[in-house]
Amino acid sequence: MHLFYSPQFSEINPYLSEEESWHCCKVLRMELNDEIWVTNGLGLLSQCQIKKVDLKKTELKILSSNNNYGKRNFSIHLAIAPTKNIDRMEWLVEKCVEIGIDEISFLQCQRSERKIIKTDRLKKIAIEAMKQSIKAYFPKINELQTFESFVSQNNFAKKFVAHLEEGKKVLLSKIIKPNENYYILIGPEGDFSMNEINLAIKHNFEPVTLGESRLRTETAGLMACQTFHIVNQLT
Amino acid sequence: MHLFYSPQFSEINPYLSEEESWHCCKVLRMELNDEIWVTNGLGLLSQCQIKKVDLKKTELKILSSNNNYGKRNFSIHLAIAPTKNIDRMEWLVEKCVEIGIDEISFLQCQRSERKIIKTDRLKKIAIEAMKQSIKAYFPKINELQTFESFVSQNNFAKKFVAHLEEGKKVLLSKIIKPNENYYILIGPEGDFSMNEINLAIKHNFEPVTLGESRLRTETAGLMACQTFHIVNQLT
Repeated sequence: MHLFYSPQFSEINPYLSEEESWHCCKVLRMELNDEIWVTNGLGLLSQCQIKKVDLKKTELKILSSNNNYGKRNFSIHLAIAPTKNIDRMEWLVEKCVEIGIDEISFLQCQRSERKIIKTDRLKKIAIEAMKQSIKAYFPKINELQTFESFVSQNNFAKKFVAHLEEGKKVLLSKIIKPNENYYILIGPEGDFSMNEINLAIKHNFEPVTLGESRLRTETAGLMACQTFHIVNQLT
Repeated sequence: MHLFYSPQFSEINPYLSEEESWHCCKVLRMELNDEIWVTNGLGLLSQCQIKKVDLKKTELKILSSNNNYGKRNFSIHLAIAPTKNIDRMEWLVEKCVEIGIDEISFLQCQRSERKIIKTDRLKKIAIEAMKQSIKAYFPKINELQTFESFVSQNNFAKKFVAHLEEGKKVLLSKIIKPNENYYILIGPEGDFSMNEINLAIKHNFEPVTLGESRLRTETAGLMACQTFHIVNQLT
């Protein structure tokens, strides 16, 4: 099953993007009447037949469509301090997209070792993961922002801050309820500072632990994401 | 907190191995009376003070010990077909050790693209992950074996086979009970063959799915491992 991602694709615009046209007809050498799947990344998943092979604008005949393919009753927004080693963020993005995530933000924290992050490459990795795991929703991937600006946003999500410092904490898996919109903050290699933790608490983020293990930043991000999924599976 | 791994370490043999002595005294330049932590990988975690700096056999004074540090009421044995790209197995091992695993086996399956695997390097990665995440149990990492030989072993574990083929399957998170010994089989890039699935079922492996997403081999392995942890957290 070959899935292509064309953000402009729709019933009234049944074409592959230039990039995907090239990939489909040149790289994969697909031909007239071959069957493919297309998503616009906004929930639409269509089964199509190639109507006209064109390396720039392949035309498709839509056979069937689902407008909300894989829509969930909950959403996950992971806000994480990027690791020094960018490979670890790349695999985090890949894995989170595979298991399902809605939004990823990168935080600049007091103890952050990495001060810049190139989201273009991460978006490409996310597209590949979305296609590989047959997803129809493309997650939002935000540019780096300060911890302070992120936590002070007003919204009605269920908000958590995972940290290893002293203080009262609850186990994430035990505190979350299904069918909610979750925000979770994951700190840098040296963890959040107490100032940051207190600021998050002031903004209604609940302090949590993910379990007994001392996890690396990217492992903690992925494990939190999977915890939300499992708790929702169990309802 | 610096954790060292010396398999021969004990109360009557309070020394770091040659490799760890070098790492401690030469690389990290630790000195007389510095405090370190040591595990033998069999559950013992000791807080120690350096009594004699020696690049080959550093002597320690044990301050306190825990013989079953982080002992769990359940065990996880992951049996997986190694991926073509060995990097993906390396990170799987790292991440499984971080979150906690007891045994990893590698399976040669009908559709396996990789026929050999070097466990020496994987064991080194597991040691680093064990030290980084402060674990006192070193997981068993087995050499590659055939699918048939693995599934035909007799034991009393709760056994599962995850696959994407047609057929009756239950959701792993819903079927498992806490405080058990779990075995799970994860197939190669092209999945298990129907013959393999049927052979596993014959040997009392229950067919399961991990959720809605089509996951890569290594992602499925890690997600299964985390699922066992979460269900045990929730008891």
